[in-house]
Amino acid sequence: MRKLFVIGIGAGDPDQVTVQAIKAMCQVNVFFLIGKGAEKQELTDVRAAILAEYARQPHTIVEISDPPRDRGVPASGADAAYQGAVADWHEARAELLERAFAETDGVGGILVWGDPSLYDSTLRIVERVLERERVHFDYEVIPGVTSAQALAAAHRMVLHEIGEPLHITTGRRLREEGLAAGQSTLVMLDGECSFTQVPGDDVYIWWGAYLGMPDEVIVEGPLRVVEGRIARRRAALRAAKGWIMDIYLLRRSV
Amino acid sequence: MRKLFVIGIGAGDPDQVTVQAIKAMCQVNVFFLIGKGAEKQELTDVRAAILAEYARQPHTIVEISDPPRDRGVPASGADAAYQGAVADWHEARAELLERAFAETDGVGGILVWGDPSLYDSTLRIVERVLERERVHFDYEVIPGVTSAQALAAAHRMVLHEIGEPLHITTGRRLREEGLAAGQSTLVMLDGECSFTQVPGDDVYIWWGAYLGMPDEVIVEGPLRVVEGRIARRRAALRAAKGWIMDIYLLRRSV
Repeated sequence: MRKLFVIGIGAGDPDQVTVQAIKAMCQVNVFFLIGKGAEKQELTDVRAAILAEYARQPHTIVEISDPPRDRGVPASGADAAYQGAVADWHEARAELLERAFAETDGVGGILVWGDPSLYDSTLRIVERVLERERVHFDYEVIPGVTSAQALAAAHRMVLHEIGEPLHITTGRRLREEGLAAGQSTLVMLDGECSFTQVPGDDVYIWWGAYLGMPDEVIVEGPLRVVEGRIARRRAALRAAKGWIMDIYLLRRSV
Repeated sequence: MRKLFVIGIGAGDPDQVTVQAIKAMCQVNVFFLIGKGAEKQELTDVRAAILAEYARQPHTIVEISDPPRDRGVPASGADAAYQGAVADWHEARAELLERAFAETDGVGGILVWGDPSLYDSTLRIVERVLERERVHFDYEVIPGVTSAQALAAAHRMVLHEIGEPLHITTGRRLREEGLAAGQSTLVMLDGECSFTQVPGDDVYIWWGAYLGMPDEVIVEGPLRVVEGRIARRRAALRAAKGWIMDIYLLRRSV
């Protein structure tokens, strides 16, 4: 494999791919699809549909099963333990990718939901493969629309107040550190409705799930008024589909 | 005007437009280009080139000169004074847009660099026009790739450490509030090389200008080692072209 493209494909709507991403896809001989298990088959299907529509040249698709990740480390555990568990999982993924890359001729491609720069492990794993020095290749990153932009577009909003900061964090951090004033906070990777643990009557939430997909749902309102509705809706959607991708913005009123 | 599309067009590379943006452009009868004055003619030219390539149906382009903004409020001034000056400017822009919308039939479109959700005033001004209730229309936001994603892609990096937050702020705030540890900080809207005022020998910087454009420049390294080079390079580029768009990420090593 002489080159690898890591391609951001947007938050879920196949129309969110860029012209740059399409041009890159058309140069790829082998796409590596890293699967998340059966419950996310639909996500694999969306990527396959994107390739069918935009990757015009003959190409092969290699599906790689994700190695199991040690979820035994409690989400509220020490950072070192959490990062150690993630690092082990990255190493196992790197070994799988290395093997796949070694068997590949020409140009490889990996499609990434949203953008590779935000809460995605692909680039860290590619760097690990290169550090192991058993396979050698050039690689290029194609930026994509993130779910943060998709959330803002669905709510037709700016993510921050005039001249103020935007803080992007995880559900785990929100639970540990609370919600700061004077900034807007965008929360990703939250499987536990951590917004229900944010105290105060002065918080507003803008929530969205399956953004850009036919099942897109958005809810906004004062947190104390809508939190129960969002939590119930989220549980019902997740139960019905088997998986959910959601994201939300929180802001204290001044 | 029955509908308005506010369309994110990516950070500067015409190939960064999405299929969704192209489909929206093809429905637009009148594009409103809000000019920033002669020194940014090149930016107007890029938008015109994007329209020439992707907006296939007959359309007209209405150029709107930006109203002057009160820059007398010192950048380090009180938040209320700063936000007041910005609000006055938004109101002047809203009046200009309202007049243009009132003269428009069909579907309008506004192209926004990057994405309308991040340090862009278009959506706030559109909301102001609607609040004035003299013109009525539906509007839709099309998300775009931001310069944050373009910076990360150019440096082939993730914008934050594993599981840690990303803080997005302005040069003014960085000067006032300093650089926090335990997070990565992305700085936009910095005309004053505020990174040179960040103390410490443990800071790393990833900088980029004209991202995605033929003149793209990136520099990375320990802040104390490369800050002078970036400041000189930035001044030279700005003098040569008459304008600059840049962005950078800072992170303290742990």
